[in-house]
Amino acid sequence: MKDIPYKIYLDESELPKNWYNLRADMKNKPAPLLNPATLQPMTAAELSGVFCDELVTQELDDTTPYFEIPEEIRDFYKMYRPAPLVRAYCLEKKLGTPAKIYYKFEGNNTSGSHKLNSAIAQAYYAKKQGLRGVTTETGAGQWGTALSMACSYFELDCKVYMVKVSYEQKPFRREVMRVYGASVTPSPSMETEVGRKILQEHPGTSGSLGCAISEAVEMATHSEGYRYVLGSVLNQVLLHQSIIGLETKTALDKYGITPDIIIGCAGGGSNLGGLIAPFMGEKLRGEKDYRIIAVEPASCPSFTRGKFAYDFCDTGMVCPLAKMYTLGSGFIPAPNHAGGLRYHGMSTTLSQLYDDGLMEAVSVPQTAVFEAAEQFARVEGILPAPESSHAIRAAIDEAMKCKETGEEKTIVFGLTGTGYFDMLAYEKFHNGKMDDYVPTDAELQAGFNKLPKV
Amino acid sequence: MKDIPYKIYLDESELPKNWYNLRADMKNKPAPLLNPATLQPMTAAELSGVFCDELVTQELDDTTPYFEIPEEIRDFYKMYRPAPLVRAYCLEKKLGTPAKIYYKFEGNNTSGSHKLNSAIAQAYYAKKQGLRGVTTETGAGQWGTALSMACSYFELDCKVYMVKVSYEQKPFRREVMRVYGASVTPSPSMETEVGRKILQEHPGTSGSLGCAISEAVEMATHSEGYRYVLGSVLNQVLLHQSIIGLETKTALDKYGITPDIIIGCAGGGSNLGGLIAPFMGEKLRGEKDYRIIAVEPASCPSFTRGKFAYDFCDTGMVCPLAKMYTLGSGFIPAPNHAGGLRYHGMSTTLSQLYDDGLMEAVSVPQTAVFEAAEQFARVEGILPAPESSHAIRAAIDEAMKCKETGEEKTIVFGLTGTGYFDMLAYEKFHNGKMDDYVPTDAELQAGFNKLPKV
Repeated sequence: MKDIPYKIYLDESELPKNWYNLRADMKNKPAPLLNPATLQPMTAAELSGVFCDELVTQELDDTTPYFEIPEEIRDFYKMYRPAPLVRAYCLEKKLGTPAKIYYKFEGNNTSGSHKLNSAIAQAYYAKKQGLRGVTTETGAGQWGTALSMACSYFELDCKVYMVKVSYEQKPFRREVMRVYGASVTPSPSMETEVGRKILQEHPGTSGSLGCAISEAVEMATHSEGYRYVLGSVLNQVLLHQSIIGLETKTALDKYGITPDIIIGCAGGGSNLGGLIAPFMGEKLRGEKDYRIIAVEPASCPSFTRGKFAYDFCDTGMVCPLAKMYTLGSGFIPAPNHAGGLRYHGMSTTLSQLYDDGLMEAVSVPQTAVFEAAEQFARVEGILPAPESSHAIRAAIDEAMKCKETGEEKTIVFGLTGTGYFDMLAYEKFHNGKMDDYVPTDAELQAGFNKLPKV
Repeated sequence: MKDIPYKIYLDESELPKNWYNLRADMKNKPAPLLNPATLQPMTAAELSGVFCDELVTQELDDTTPYFEIPEEIRDFYKMYRPAPLVRAYCLEKKLGTPAKIYYKFEGNNTSGSHKLNSAIAQAYYAKKQGLRGVTTETGAGQWGTALSMACSYFELDCKVYMVKVSYEQKPFRREVMRVYGASVTPSPSMETEVGRKILQEHPGTSGSLGCAISEAVEMATHSEGYRYVLGSVLNQVLLHQSIIGLETKTALDKYGITPDIIIGCAGGGSNLGGLIAPFMGEKLRGEKDYRIIAVEPASCPSFTRGKFAYDFCDTGMVCPLAKMYTLGSGFIPAPNHAGGLRYHGMSTTLSQLYDDGLMEAVSVPQTAVFEAAEQFARVEGILPAPESSHAIRAAIDEAMKCKETGEEKTIVFGLTGTGYFDMLAYEKFHNGKMDDYVPTDAELQAGFNKLPKV
């Protein structure tokens, strides 16, 4: 076997030419989105009022295994991809583990995360359709930043509704979006009907993601030449994110490495779904077996404590229903939760795979996540995003089990991004102001009781 | 000629094994540091009270052309190096220039800049000497962050005196240093004699870099097992930073590219000195010729409007005298200046080369720098540090000259880092609150009048 460098960089020529559509290899397909009014599957025509036409096609297609990546998107990818697969030699040494640890690092771009992989694709299709612009919502700001960068590249108008509390507490994220020419509106705003209504009912509210989604959707569907875009959960997003897994697999194959365990953090599932795609494909086709682990925060445990049921994708209940592991669309994680991954539901594809026993899930408490983040930063030199640090926590835990048993397992995890705009959370951690509150069974049950009857 | 990819990544095996000591090829050597008390050249014995022994050797040696990079440092370098040399295809297209633009990107690490290249070397030699720790000062925080990362890796104590106004206005930089286990003290502090004295004379002062240097030096020289380290200006730092230029040259040679113009921003000179080292070496040996351009802020124009004279390296006048282009050690750039590169002097090596006519210098106003930064970010996807953006400004200006003349010049510039912790400056720019104040001749003359008589 060849010597394995610290960082495996693929050549530009090895950049994948196709995205991989995991659904094509699933026997049990993910359940379709339902129209909340009729409870019938959403049609292409219904979806195309909200999303670009080609994205609707990608959203609905569960049989075509590969979609060609347009040259224009590949050119953009070349600015920051192929992303490195890093051998965590220093972490292994520090842990004293016989395990071999690799991580796919998606943070080497200004948006600071993997979100850019789908943002550029969605912006491209909007441009191709001749649209003027797109609207979206953002909470912490990673998705909004990624979309701003993508729209700037294709000279599309970009309108971001940013949850008001984040808008005020994270002025730097907002400022990055302004560098890329996006207009950023604190939500709720007076610009939309739903915003005005909420402000009238709750004067002085600091907003929520659910409300920001509703405003973005309203603005898109009421403005000529605009569509709405979303950074996670959807099948189209998982499709675009498959580039993470495809590159990872190419890099591993090049050095003859077969992973035993693949680990990713899971909020809506965009990173996890992308990272595991080609590996899960092999598993589905019976070619190989891998342990695949989703890691979620103990404060928002969709997989580990949620219900597999049809639910609204948004808190405002204006979007279609999706069959997924959910805590109920009204679920809001404890306000002290700093670690991202706050979505109440989960990608329908991943939900189906989990329900079919093809992957595992663990939940980890917040303090343990930041401990792992700091340990990782000190030896590997990268200050990780809180979201990514959930995967680090699980990877370290698995590596420590190997230390006990002496097994030389190969662990691959997704390092989705950097934490440069999350230093408030790190500060909280250093000052001992973080707590590990998890929802009680009664609290979760209250959410389950409100699930729509489908 | 081979197709040139967007990003040229060298293999790990191509990581330089030696640093290059530019002084060895200089006919006119940089003038020695002088003891301020005796006005005699500083001896190794005198310097070793402040700096580690091996660093003193490197500081004083102006004849040995190559210093081997210890294996331990090379291992650390492998976590973030070789750094990519990027072909700015998108910027070229946007500008419509026939020029070919390349940039060496040093921002792919958590410190966000090239400073880590020297920090890890200085930490290594401190560890090797059996020291307990090191002290330093930091203003904006890039150097402090880099040193924290390096000390964490070698398990050395790291004590950073951070200018109080930065400590308060940049809590996130401070928090990054805490992730890496450094102790960060706002300066002036009650921990040192000089700090107590300053606080007594100026209660409520928000500090200055000069004061922080004095505190760090006092703490190092009064504590058993500690030395002081510095992130720029010194010969040893330029030596370590030569890795930037060596990698750049290897990457260019690999594709048969010869640059016409090499551009770097210049504050104390660490990035510029490192980037140009091997190219200037060829020029000094008469093998090749290049245009080499230093870019400095119009508000702190050491090269373009300074005097070449012996001066104190620090505002507190406790450090040795260096012969350099200087605005006077009491010079303080206008407080509205957000763009970094605020040092009153310049590396003695670069000063000598400039005085010998071997390189050029230009100064650029702040607003134009941020315009270039934003233009670059939008097409190249990287949000640049204000410091680096000085080089971008000059590179764009040269590329636009090529557009006029039709010349296909090859331009290489140093992109020293990212601006993720500089969003306050970008916000100022967006809000039109930046001004382009430059010092008057009379203000500069006042500084020159106070230069020490040597």
